[in-house]
Amino acid sequence: MEFGISPQQIFVGNGSDEVLAHVFMALLKHELPIFFPDITYSFYPVYCGLYEIAHVTVPLDENFEIRREDYATANGGIIFPNPNAPTGRLLPLTAIERLLLAHHRSVVVVDEAYIDFGGESALALVNHHPNLLVVHTLSKSRSLAGLRVGYAVGHRDLIEALERVKNSFNSYPLDRLAIAGAVAAIGDQEYFEITRQAVISSRETLRSTLLRQGFEVLPSAANFIFVRHPQHDAGQLAAALRQRSILVRHFKLPRIDQYLRITIGTDAQCALLVEALAEIAGRSILIA
Amino acid sequence: MEFGISPQQIFVGNGSDEVLAHVFMALLKHELPIFFPDITYSFYPVYCGLYEIAHVTVPLDENFEIRREDYATANGGIIFPNPNAPTGRLLPLTAIERLLLAHHRSVVVVDEAYIDFGGESALALVNHHPNLLVVHTLSKSRSLAGLRVGYAVGHRDLIEALERVKNSFNSYPLDRLAIAGAVAAIGDQEYFEITRQAVISSRETLRSTLLRQGFEVLPSAANFIFVRHPQHDAGQLAAALRQRSILVRHFKLPRIDQYLRITIGTDAQCALLVEALAEIAGRSILIA
Repeated sequence: MEFGISPQQIFVGNGSDEVLAHVFMALLKHELPIFFPDITYSFYPVYCGLYEIAHVTVPLDENFEIRREDYATANGGIIFPNPNAPTGRLLPLTAIERLLLAHHRSVVVVDEAYIDFGGESALALVNHHPNLLVVHTLSKSRSLAGLRVGYAVGHRDLIEALERVKNSFNSYPLDRLAIAGAVAAIGDQEYFEITRQAVISSRETLRSTLLRQGFEVLPSAANFIFVRHPQHDAGQLAAALRQRSILVRHFKLPRIDQYLRITIGTDAQCALLVEALAEIAGRSILIA
Repeated sequence: MEFGISPQQIFVGNGSDEVLAHVFMALLKHELPIFFPDITYSFYPVYCGLYEIAHVTVPLDENFEIRREDYATANGGIIFPNPNAPTGRLLPLTAIERLLLAHHRSVVVVDEAYIDFGGESALALVNHHPNLLVVHTLSKSRSLAGLRVGYAVGHRDLIEALERVKNSFNSYPLDRLAIAGAVAAIGDQEYFEITRQAVISSRETLRSTLLRQGFEVLPSAANFIFVRHPQHDAGQLAAALRQRSILVRHFKLPRIDQYLRITIGTDAQCALLVEALAEIAGRSILIA
């Protein structure tokens, strides 16, 4: 593997959700609360509930970015997706490295489900920071959501802790066909490059089109964009799109209830979305 | 499904080990300790350790049978495999029904991993006893250990509790190929009958052969037999078989350290085992 990573530094599970569940139980359950962003992957508080893990949500800044300084106090661990979900915003490696140094006694988990769509992986830092765990999935950039394969990479001690929890839960979480598919997918670098570049290219095309339509579009390093329109209510837009059989995600949550998360489809699918939005916006009522 | 069971009464997971893990967390964690046999599936105490569940082991009787009366005290739930592992002994449905009636306030989990090799399934009792959960796997009688599919059947309330825990852990535990394989396997009743009858037939042949060789062989309703030889040390026999590349299971545990668990292979494989045992017994030292 790249970056001089050995097999003993890799933990494989039944999708990165299973990997994350074991991470919460094995590595993030401590006296001190763990930290994660206020706007982030919705499963993190769920895992905390399941395993009774105290947590503190740290607000993203006004641009929906992670501000490293806000994590400055003592904690039982830090976890965040990079790029973040559902915002798509990327934290650069330099900031992650500063975070690792500032919290060298905490486990810092970087959940890189979307990293291949525009970010630089923290795998490069694993062998320099024993407190770093990087989580990947084959469900996004490898197009294999149906196979359920995810993995974590980090110091052997972290991997051993994960193995211990796994071996008390389900010793054989991956089926043989999934293993074969995963190995083949990792081997096929060419197909991987084609598919991820296609997503990146479609994303940038969609982004500029929506900007021209008057949408605000956060810079995204993921396979989705996070958008709002200053004159149109996000809930109404989502409902009108749904009537046209176009599903986008609207989170009825503080700070982001005027945003839509739009997954990048093919260029043809993106064009249909743009057309539908133009039509809806043309006849919809402006928000107060 | 048979027995008038509806889809809402079925919980599917990534192998029956995952199903069991969720069962321990969702249904067996209470103030009172749970009960299971002293000789049983080795994973039960492991799950108790993982989830901090108090438990009491109830000794099997001198014939390695579950004695229903020994479970008479108040408890936080009861779980046992039927047929039991590694003994292979079967508890009849009438005894299970009495147990369910005597403990109608406890969840009683019957882990039927091996039921198709000679037992009568407690699925027949599910709609009469809301406290019963039956766990099955496709890894044994359906020959699909590599696919990782198991399931639990019980009252909708029990299934709902399992779904809640599952949805806080990993919402999509089965991969698409495993689902397709599982559906096909359940549909192919003819192949199922052929393979399980082959195991049953080979088991009975091996059993009578070993009895003639002087072994004691417990009656088995599983795809393995549990045997000892009054004159030969089980550990020595296992080691000698291993030298001949025949792997049998020897548990260095109280009460059963003179037994071997032998999985039923093909008739040809069983014949090789018998031949090897005859040769080893011929030259081995009798136990003191």
